[in-house]
Amino acid sequence: MPDSFRKITKDDLERMDRIYRLNLVNSLSGIKSVNLVGTISSKNITNLAVISSVVHLSSSPALLGFMQRPVTVPLHTYRNIHETGEFTINMVSSDFTANAHYTSAKFDDFQSEFEACGLTPQYFTESKAPCVAESPLKIVLKFEEEYLIKASNTILMVGSVQSVYVLPDAIDVDGMIDLELLKAAGLSGLNTYYNVSKLARYPYARVNEFPQNQLKNL
Amino acid sequence: MPDSFRKITKDDLERMDRIYRLNLVNSLSGIKSVNLVGTISSKNITNLAVISSVVHLSSSPALLGFMQRPVTVPLHTYRNIHETGEFTINMVSSDFTANAHYTSAKFDDFQSEFEACGLTPQYFTESKAPCVAESPLKIVLKFEEEYLIKASNTILMVGSVQSVYVLPDAIDVDGMIDLELLKAAGLSGLNTYYNVSKLARYPYARVNEFPQNQLKNL
Repeated sequence: MPDSFRKITKDDLERMDRIYRLNLVNSLSGIKSVNLVGTISSKNITNLAVISSVVHLSSSPALLGFMQRPVTVPLHTYRNIHETGEFTINMVSSDFTANAHYTSAKFDDFQSEFEACGLTPQYFTESKAPCVAESPLKIVLKFEEEYLIKASNTILMVGSVQSVYVLPDAIDVDGMIDLELLKAAGLSGLNTYYNVSKLARYPYARVNEFPQNQLKNL
Repeated sequence: MPDSFRKITKDDLERMDRIYRLNLVNSLSGIKSVNLVGTISSKNITNLAVISSVVHLSSSPALLGFMQRPVTVPLHTYRNIHETGEFTINMVSSDFTANAHYTSAKFDDFQSEFEACGLTPQYFTESKAPCVAESPLKIVLKFEEEYLIKASNTILMVGSVQSVYVLPDAIDVDGMIDLELLKAAGLSGLNTYYNVSKLARYPYARVNEFPQNQLKNL
């Protein structure tokens, strides 16, 4: 088997065409969630940025993080979060991946991605930051912490969950959210979007109990 | 549309049954990649831990990160990385999600998850850390940095890519990796695994060019 694999070394990566390397290295981490971060500036201009780096940090307290490049596209997001202390994370479904992808274009400061990309802002009383009406799972967060990751010059933004809005049928009796029912989209690299479909559910893993797929008994 | 959504507040989350909350909050971030982190101790005991928090940090230099809970299951991973400075990240395909899930059981210190879970260690000359032979995409990394995230008491581990081993047909002319061809698995929450299938590919987003799905023209 090893012989049939292509080996790419660190030197190979450094010598590669920049776009080829961008595509390749951005694909290495596997399937990524696709979310829109919603914010509003102190001048009440809304902003949406598509992100594929949302990471679960803690369930109690409920904390989520995402990676922010400091000097590139989603700069408005970073500034707005600092101005208001608030942001939202909105799951992108397969129904509006083109609209979500379009938010990564370099729109002018005064232009809201909502209008430009054909998405609808939705406001809840607990936050000034806009949610995305089209999203099947919307999370309102309060900014908590940030960390500069020196090696990559990126910033990990950390927020605490204030409220969640989700299609009720998507939560099962155990609290699990059905991503297939929500038509959650995935992303590989920078621009290839995927559908997801359920494959297996296993019990909590214990020694001497090889996991059996519970979906096969349904 | 808003009326049909279920609202869950921060207070609701705090009052929930612990397992229900674990399942729910771990599902909020959407589809997650599934990888096995391979390490070896200074006493040459190998370790595998399934992780769903790998995050892209930078393409040049090529850097990946993952979240490590400091005092829970993958403690061997953390200790081994500090002992050797090396680890591997191995994509989990739909062919061995049960084996990968089983690595999260609490095996004894002296027991390697490779043997216990029916997976095959594979060594390359550039690292002592084992790869997973069954994996369609294996990445050898050098440990670079770690960050304690105070709010969640988790640690972001950062590594630089030393080499990549991938099925050659899976990389297209632009450097993009085909996750469907690799049968990459996704994860929701703690124990529901998903298949992924290609939905759309869009060009780099530019103002006044609403993204068109390039897969429709193939």
